[in-house]
Amino acid sequence: MSIHVAVNGYGVIGKRVADAVADQDDMTLVGVADVTFDYRIRVAVERGYGIYASVPEQRSVMEAANVPVVGTLDDLLANVDVVVDCTPKSIGAKNKPHYEQAGVKAIFQGGEKHALAGLSFTAQVNYAEALNKPYARVVSCNTTALCRVLHALQRHDWIKRARAVLLRRGTDPWESHRNGMINTAIPETKVPSHQGPDAQTVMPGLDITTMAGAGPYNLSHLHFAMIETTRPVSLDELRHTLWEEPRIAFVHAGDGLVALNAVIELMRDLRRPRNDMWEVAVWEDALAVDDREVYLAFQVHNEAITIPESIDAIRALTGSEFDAAASMAKTDRALGIVKSFFPHSVFERSEHRAMAERIQQFQEEGFKGSEEPTP
Amino acid sequence: MSIHVAVNGYGVIGKRVADAVADQDDMTLVGVADVTFDYRIRVAVERGYGIYASVPEQRSVMEAANVPVVGTLDDLLANVDVVVDCTPKSIGAKNKPHYEQAGVKAIFQGGEKHALAGLSFTAQVNYAEALNKPYARVVSCNTTALCRVLHALQRHDWIKRARAVLLRRGTDPWESHRNGMINTAIPETKVPSHQGPDAQTVMPGLDITTMAGAGPYNLSHLHFAMIETTRPVSLDELRHTLWEEPRIAFVHAGDGLVALNAVIELMRDLRRPRNDMWEVAVWEDALAVDDREVYLAFQVHNEAITIPESIDAIRALTGSEFDAAASMAKTDRALGIVKSFFPHSVFERSEHRAMAERIQQFQEEGFKGSEEPTP
Amino acid sequence: MSIHVAVNGYGVIGKRVADAVADQDDMTLVGVADVTFDYRIRVAVERGYGIYASVPEQRSVMEAANVPVVGTLDDLLANVDVVVDCTPKSIGAKNKPHYEQAGVKAIFQGGEKHALAGLSFTAQVNYAEALNKPYARVVSCNTTALCRVLHALQRHDWIKRARAVLLRRGTDPWESHRNGMINTAIPETKVPSHQGPDAQTVMPGLDITTMAGAGPYNLSHLHFAMIETTRPVSLDELRHTLWEEPRIAFVHAGDGLVALNAVIELMRDLRRPRNDMWEVAVWEDALAVDDREVYLAFQVHNEAITIPESIDAIRALTGSEFDAAASMAKTDRALGIVKSFFPHSVFERSEHRAMAERIQQFQEEGFKGSEEPTP
Amino acid sequence: MSIHVAVNGYGVIGKRVADAVADQDDMTLVGVADVTFDYRIRVAVERGYGIYASVPEQRSVMEAANVPVVGTLDDLLANVDVVVDCTPKSIGAKNKPHYEQAGVKAIFQGGEKHALAGLSFTAQVNYAEALNKPYARVVSCNTTALCRVLHALQRHDWIKRARAVLLRRGTDPWESHRNGMINTAIPETKVPSHQGPDAQTVMPGLDITTMAGAGPYNLSHLHFAMIETTRPVSLDELRHTLWEEPRIAFVHAGDGLVALNAVIELMRDLRRPRNDMWEVAVWEDALAVDDREVYLAFQVHNEAITIPESIDAIRALTGSEFDAAASMAKTDRALGIVKSFFPHSVFERSEHRAMAERIQQFQEEGFKGSEEPTP
Repeated sequence: MSIHVAVNGYGVIGKRVADAVADQDDMTLVGVADVTFDYRIRVAVERGYGIYASVPEQRSVMEAANVPVVGTLDDLLANVDVVVDCTPKSIGAKNKPHYEQAGVKAIFQGGEKHALAGLSFTAQVNYAEALNKPYARVVSCNTTALCRVLHALQRHDWIKRARAVLLRRGTDPWESHRNGMINTAIPETKVPSHQGPDAQTVMPGLDITTMAGAGPYNLSHLHFAMIETTRPVSLDELRHTLWEEPRIAFVHAGDGLVALNAVIELMRDLRRPRNDMWEVAVWEDALAVDDREVYLAFQVHNEAITIPESIDAIRALTGSEFDAAASMAKTDRALGIVKSFFPHSVFERSEHRAMAERIQQFQEEGFKGSEEPTP
Repeated sequence: MSIHVAVNGYGVIGKRVADAVADQDDMTLVGVADVTFDYRIRVAVERGYGIYASVPEQRSVMEAANVPVVGTLDDLLANVDVVVDCTPKSIGAKNKPHYEQAGVKAIFQGGEKHALAGLSFTAQVNYAEALNKPYARVVSCNTTALCRVLHALQRHDWIKRARAVLLRRGTDPWESHRNGMINTAIPETKVPSHQGPDAQTVMPGLDITTMAGAGPYNLSHLHFAMIETTRPVSLDELRHTLWEEPRIAFVHAGDGLVALNAVIELMRDLRRPRNDMWEVAVWEDALAVDDREVYLAFQVHNEAITIPESIDAIRALTGSEFDAAASMAKTDRALGIVKSFFPHSVFERSEHRAMAERIQQFQEEGFKGSEEPTP
Repeated sequence: MSIHVAVNGYGVIGKRVADAVADQDDMTLVGVADVTFDYRIRVAVERGYGIYASVPEQRSVMEAANVPVVGTLDDLLANVDVVVDCTPKSIGAKNKPHYEQAGVKAIFQGGEKHALAGLSFTAQVNYAEALNKPYARVVSCNTTALCRVLHALQRHDWIKRARAVLLRRGTDPWESHRNGMINTAIPETKVPSHQGPDAQTVMPGLDITTMAGAGPYNLSHLHFAMIETTRPVSLDELRHTLWEEPRIAFVHAGDGLVALNAVIELMRDLRRPRNDMWEVAVWEDALAVDDREVYLAFQVHNEAITIPESIDAIRALTGSEFDAAASMAKTDRALGIVKSFFPHSVFERSEHRAMAERIQQFQEEGFKGSEEPTP
Repeated sequence: MSIHVAVNGYGVIGKRVADAVADQDDMTLVGVADVTFDYRIRVAVERGYGIYASVPEQRSVMEAANVPVVGTLDDLLANVDVVVDCTPKSIGAKNKPHYEQAGVKAIFQGGEKHALAGLSFTAQVNYAEALNKPYARVVSCNTTALCRVLHALQRHDWIKRARAVLLRRGTDPWESHRNGMINTAIPETKVPSHQGPDAQTVMPGLDITTMAGAGPYNLSHLHFAMIETTRPVSLDELRHTLWEEPRIAFVHAGDGLVALNAVIELMRDLRRPRNDMWEVAVWEDALAVDDREVYLAFQVHNEAITIPESIDAIRALTGSEFDAAASMAKTDRALGIVKSFFPHSVFERSEHRAMAERIQQFQEEGFKGSEEPTP
């Protein structure tokens, strides 16, 4: 009774979704479709994934380059329950009719418009809404991070108005030899930037404005959030609600984790595949509050953060798991998503002992009681 | 009746202040003091500046390296009316007793504490307060920029509460081979960052909170400001008040000025010395408003922006010019500070014609009526 | 009969050596010694490594930070056969008396002088010389890479004179938020640079000159080598000797592997720990020859390349394995070092079929006949 | 009897050539042609240059953006003696028929093939060959630098064989927000790289091989040259011949000029327009020799280095100055090209006194006896 899954588009997101699907014990990766024949697809060959030509006419080109092509996208779609579309922005919209015709459910990425799927998805916010739906759109990395963090506050009705400035990475590591930037930063001239309204597709009624820019680094995004609260929120309250929210983990400048590179070095040291960080890393020692507002700085690993959402969306669309917490716990265990990067250190910190006990429970049973979709 | 000026510390700020003093027709640069003998001081020698050892024991070292040393700092102080202290952070505090003893007025930089001078200075905000005072502190590049921009709104009592996120350059160009950063960004864990409170030393009563970070580029800082207003402010009102505020200039992404590097390339094309931009560059096409708030993105050339402030502070402390507008106009003409980088293009844009006529007037007569210190 | 190993210094090299030792089935990692208590050592705690204070007085500081310290460096040394010293440059020299006193064999890194160990080591060049010696020095990343590549030519007596220009990474990823550089490159003014003479400590009599510089990237070094040959060497001959040399792997720009970042992205896709590349990556499609000279460009992952050498050196010093090929094959299997990153793709390329068959043999039996130390 | 000059293509090179022409007292800049209407051309408007549409159909677009267009390229060509084609690579070839038809002489840039002009030009090497010719091609920045440096050695018949590795800048500052690279370096897989053969178009018979790469910086190129000599050349001989060669200047790491950014900071401090460095900057303290070879590291400011060549080529093609030394001295005085960045410091160094006296003579009279084209 394994869910049969296809991944269409084997780039930054597609290759990670494919690996994550292959890592779940209730899913089968039937194949991946793309048009390329470079090193990326060659690794998929080594891993034994079925390779399909997402455009029929590209099949012979791929085969000429010694890529063993099993069939075309249509062949792939014929054998799956759900496809995760990981193609570049706006290609997903062109692909939807194919999926419809093939009768497969489809998950789109944040580059597509909300209307394409009619449902924008962040697991811990609105899993239940996606149950048995034909389509879902996993929102972008930045929006996913905002939704996780803001959901931690919204569940207490603390948010009066949220403001955030997002500093995006200049380009992704795999293409950093081109498309990049040198010694500059770019402000987005569209104000507010699209991430605020995008978060509202997941959390309707949220009062949020975002501004955005980009800089010459490729490891992650960096967010600064200033959130006006409906009542004074103490530092402890802020810390606790973030602690209890899934897929958010604290980092401490006091542990040497002072910048984007240090946090990614930690992912390397943890021997994570591709040094991926699926969690939003919130600097615990940069948390601040005053009587009107709370302030947060957090790191968003754009390559990785939406991967667990795609896995949960697969379960939700296929109706294979009705409970959000159960799906998330399953995904988190399979990928290695944690609430604390150093559980042993946390246990030793007395003020964190109560939290630490919850962690173990989280990892074993899922985040009980925290997965209800917000009204 | 020329004002005799010394510059102590010949680094990023000191060398620019020295050049700017030399460019004023009412000032005489008597000499510069430093401890170095590298290429920077060798250029000062070529330019004919008098070189003084700021530490007596360094004199022989400098002379051994063929730097023609005229005397020590004390010799220099004996011959000037005012010294601009451009030494590294907290050295200014150690220098103050020397200045006091020598009976010279002193201008400190933003790295020193407010209490050292008792007066934190931004020309267009509080020139009058500095008249004939013994000391002034020119606030830091980031604070100077915030004060200029916020003053444009505060003169209309529009500011309810200001929030800003400042992305600082990673290091300065001259030392970018060390002290720099590669492929990362650093969030400041001190929240709020110090620039907000610092702006309050110039603009008391201002409600402002800032957060800050830094990235791997060295051309400028980049600010994002979200300013809650006391009443809805229209885009035209916002544009006009910025237009009328001295030392702020608009740039347009539509002109290809889309990033920090492009704006600095414009400074290069304008053949400005060291490609310096003394103005705050506000993206006109990124200005945005809603019924509660106005939004701005602006570029702050950290190496250059405070230079005109030091010049004006010299006139204020020595009482050589009582009118802020007159001093600023004099400084601006001498350095080449403008309200529009392309006056001819602006004239052609009909909607800007009225503004354009004001420009000419500004450049000729100074910013009438806009220089009163805020209450 | 497991070899008991200590790692002193848990930085870029130390943490990798520790992991590599733990991955060998003929070695036991008794513990790691350091003075830090930041995220790096916390990961060691999570992994269950014994933590020792390399300086006694630091023990209480580490314990105060909740690092469970087992003992001091002396305690650690009392329980091991060999220590791998991975401390910063020139600290190894200070540590040697401790090792001597404790009666443990010691392996030093390339930051130490040749004379400290009396033997500079690259496994495929001079394993036999290190057998049962008390000390060995694993040469630096750049020198290791040069020795591997030049050894492939020297075994045929092809080298008349070697010239190379090495472009070093600006700093390592973990400390890229400081110590880095922005938008510049630095030429070394010491010509020839030290790597040429250093290679001669491993390959005496080699005629080589190197020049060096560094740039604002942190992923790897980049080498350009121009090697005058004793007779015309064909492209096929060059390709074959590199193919047969251990720990060198080809990459192809034609596969999209066009720059340092792309090759490291491949390591990420291969799910290697910390995206480490222990092999020298030689661009096969950049190989060139003329009737006097051969030309190569290769990538040297400075964080990882010397790790297998330390493992082999442990076996050589302790005399636990007399055959270089056998030790190297054991190390390579344990770490996952390969001759081809895409063995299936290589098999398909007919011109590579013969080579491909050798690969399998290599991976199973070691590099027969190629491991003799050069005379 | 001023030479009437057009500049076609107003980018990195074109805008500098235009300014340099305007700075000569024997030339008149009639106008510049381009298709753009962004900030670059707006600065040309401010400077009073005549703006022409290089493609007729673009004229209305430019005018709609308020750029005052005087006419089309054909109109411009009708009024000039010579055009400097500064269009992107290979566009020059398409433009040549227009120039031919208009009967104007033309200078192309290094992006065009040698055959297009039939004459590849570096002023100090082969000025005489260009006299009264219809076309010349100013070779690329890298090739120009190689020709200057190698010419200093070739005039003594010292070169047996030259090898160089060129590390190019990743992109130019003006477009560093796109097209750039982040945290990587790219080796060229074409070996030898094209610069070696290109230098042979200027210096026939030169034995040279080059390899090339590029890195994530935009300030300059960095060259490492290893030159086998026909006889042992002493450090003094090497230093003297470089000293006597025009348009080469020494920099010293000992003066703090240790990296690309420091040398460009010096250009800024010297208040050079756009911080341009027209000279090849050779690190004097990195010069090295042995009994077979000389070694040099030098910095090549790609944006600026060919500008004086274009000016000299104008005089050569139009036959307005028959003497290379006279033309070069004229150009150098107008632009501010020097042999020493700190003439006063040099005078003080006794070992340089003789050289220093020659400097003054150079600047006043030109480089006597050094301008003969090599046989």
